[in-house]
Amino acid sequence: MAFVPAQFIETKRDGAAHAEHEIDAWIRAFIREEVTDYQMTAWLMAVYLKGLSDQEMVALTRSMLHSGKQIKRPKAGRPRIDKHSTGGVGDKISLPLVGIAAACGLDVPMIAGRGLGHTGGTLDKLEAITGYRVNLSLGEFNKVVRRAGASIIGQTADIAPADRRIYALRDVTGTVACRPLIVASILSKKLAAGLDGLVLDVKVGRGAFMKEAKYARHLAKSLVAVASQLGTQAVAVLSNMDQPLGRAIGNSLEVEESVVVLQGGGPKDVVDLTISLVSEMLVLADLEPNKASAQARAEQALASGAAFQRFCDMVELHGGDRRLLEQTHRLPRSKYKVEVVAEQTGHLVDIEPLILSGVAQSLGAGRKRASDTIDPAVGIVINCELGQHIKRGDLLCTLHMNQRAQPLIETARSAFSLGRAREQNSPLILGRIAS
Amino acid sequence: MAFVPAQFIETKRDGAAHAEHEIDAWIRAFIREEVTDYQMTAWLMAVYLKGLSDQEMVALTRSMLHSGKQIKRPKAGRPRIDKHSTGGVGDKISLPLVGIAAACGLDVPMIAGRGLGHTGGTLDKLEAITGYRVNLSLGEFNKVVRRAGASIIGQTADIAPADRRIYALRDVTGTVACRPLIVASILSKKLAAGLDGLVLDVKVGRGAFMKEAKYARHLAKSLVAVASQLGTQAVAVLSNMDQPLGRAIGNSLEVEESVVVLQGGGPKDVVDLTISLVSEMLVLADLEPNKASAQARAEQALASGAAFQRFCDMVELHGGDRRLLEQTHRLPRSKYKVEVVAEQTGHLVDIEPLILSGVAQSLGAGRKRASDTIDPAVGIVINCELGQHIKRGDLLCTLHMNQRAQPLIETARSAFSLGRAREQNSPLILGRIAS
Repeated sequence: MAFVPAQFIETKRDGAAHAEHEIDAWIRAFIREEVTDYQMTAWLMAVYLKGLSDQEMVALTRSMLHSGKQIKRPKAGRPRIDKHSTGGVGDKISLPLVGIAAACGLDVPMIAGRGLGHTGGTLDKLEAITGYRVNLSLGEFNKVVRRAGASIIGQTADIAPADRRIYALRDVTGTVACRPLIVASILSKKLAAGLDGLVLDVKVGRGAFMKEAKYARHLAKSLVAVASQLGTQAVAVLSNMDQPLGRAIGNSLEVEESVVVLQGGGPKDVVDLTISLVSEMLVLADLEPNKASAQARAEQALASGAAFQRFCDMVELHGGDRRLLEQTHRLPRSKYKVEVVAEQTGHLVDIEPLILSGVAQSLGAGRKRASDTIDPAVGIVINCELGQHIKRGDLLCTLHMNQRAQPLIETARSAFSLGRAREQNSPLILGRIAS
Repeated sequence: MAFVPAQFIETKRDGAAHAEHEIDAWIRAFIREEVTDYQMTAWLMAVYLKGLSDQEMVALTRSMLHSGKQIKRPKAGRPRIDKHSTGGVGDKISLPLVGIAAACGLDVPMIAGRGLGHTGGTLDKLEAITGYRVNLSLGEFNKVVRRAGASIIGQTADIAPADRRIYALRDVTGTVACRPLIVASILSKKLAAGLDGLVLDVKVGRGAFMKEAKYARHLAKSLVAVASQLGTQAVAVLSNMDQPLGRAIGNSLEVEESVVVLQGGGPKDVVDLTISLVSEMLVLADLEPNKASAQARAEQALASGAAFQRFCDMVELHGGDRRLLEQTHRLPRSKYKVEVVAEQTGHLVDIEPLILSGVAQSLGAGRKRASDTIDPAVGIVINCELGQHIKRGDLLCTLHMNQRAQPLIETARSAFSLGRAREQNSPLILGRIAS
């Protein structure tokens, strides 16, 4: 029986299920350009509106994964565990995390998507370090992992090319916010690295893609289930994204904050979440029996300086300038620093993450279009803490800018809400889902 | 406010309504290629699944109509009335109809779509007449209408280019069978001819696109309402397509049958439906006060030979060889004629139209893909009548073939069902909808 693309689209349009071999034929035909982009997007919209069953989601992920090369798990060697975050404002966790995890005995072969977003992605942050190459061949990637215990690269042309092409189409056709498509996109890239396990950090809240815990939990369950069906153990953590994570937003500024964390300091939320995720990775790898012992090991890796060392090694092996990490004042700096101060008095009851990320994007820290270039130097540093008593004239945040833009100052100020003192009590980790 | 295509798609995806100016911006951007094909198809699928309101349908039709040139109604001259059929097996009505209507005092500027279908469209039938040019400029088209009272052309690049491009996309993305898109496609072409009125022949039944009267009636109502909103009076007739129309299926064979009708003979169903539709056109044009007087005038045009004359004039003005109409044995003929005979005895209780049209397509009378070429000579002639008593060995139909294909004979035979004598009582006209 010949495979007829229009019939495949009609099946999903009418709410019926695809057989596994049909999904595979569809993705193969798309890669061979026998299915056109305009047929793919009609199907993506049908999937958005009619959904995919769990079996279809597994089949789609597998076909997208098989559309490219996959790294074979080495028979010997350290456990290979990766982490993926669905992204949030100020989320630089991947940077300290790979250093700590590598120092604790894990190999972390991390393939990061670039994606659009108000603020730069992990790759943009790393590129703030002069010389850092995100585009390694798979051979170089393996070598860096072997030597440093971690490597962070971008999706190469070899890895899940079906995902690359589909993702670019989803972004401009209103088909991004679709759970089965998100699952297939994330896992087809991540599983190409030949993992023993994967920890998923699913963000929930105003600053995240998923605003509601219900949807985030559903996504987390699907991610864990599909990874497990495809032979990779996974754990998902639901983490709070109602407030910005840490104090720095902007690429160079976030590298600097990451270095501070790797040197044993840094904001409590960044440290706690990083340690928590590394602990999940260590338990998943059977390197530690439980979260408590895993946490102690991760903290020890920070305290000893081993984690920072691993991170510097990785950066160096990627061609990055290690001295920028040892002397962070040499990282790219903006021309101007503009202080945003309070115009009223009260307790700081809220920092709205999307307002700040919007300002950071306008400053040049993120992309509006995929073709935009990023300015590594610009961004925002938050200079106050939730619950703190603020007086008129007190510093709220500092904008690092290369061009004067007065209206952004007013916008940034509007992210900070002052009111009556109240209990600050939103937990950082909202849930956990294991297979 | 800038127009953002992805947001427009999301609006329909989420089931909300578009404003008229947004639909117009969308179609304009598509024509300028600022909206891509893959964005259009995502939207078409969203429209398929979420629908368009009456206002949105009017706005879409208007924007598609305005995407190209429109012929201005001449201030003086005969009433300009066109007819459109949604298509069925053996439907050659347009050919005799334009001759009769022109002879009765109407101008019929007919822009026909080509479309895919088991059997050839009106343009394919006309192209069976050696020399007939379906691609006239709008200037030539106007001139032929002025001189012959009728012209049938294909959709030029000037006419509703948005429809041409959208139609090609719908065909391969499972978005054909969608009422609002059908309405906009038909009317954006038809209304470009600057009409005083439009008669719509909406087919219902097994051999038609619409199998159920409910859907056909809904489509007919929408067509009449949207045409009327855009300033053109319209009437729709629901006609029966449970059996093939007439006896000939295939391009040259249907031209021959049309000529027989224009000369006062031909199968009763073809004659009756043609006369009925012309009568609607005459009443719509106010050339006749009622259907009875209009019918008499149409019959007179046939009997006098004026209708045939007009048709021959039109064909000649299109470059077609008039002698082929006067001596139809000179039309393209197939190499072989294969007789299909009954293998049992009984009353003929059914002829399944889609089986015969499938056979005709396999013989080469229709296209499977838009790029297929059509063989004008091949097709089927039905040699029996519903209700007739058939004996084993009696002739059922004749296949006109250019290549021997034994299995098609068996398939063709299976279209004819023999059984007990019963009342043949399915009316040709099932309903009528006026604005």
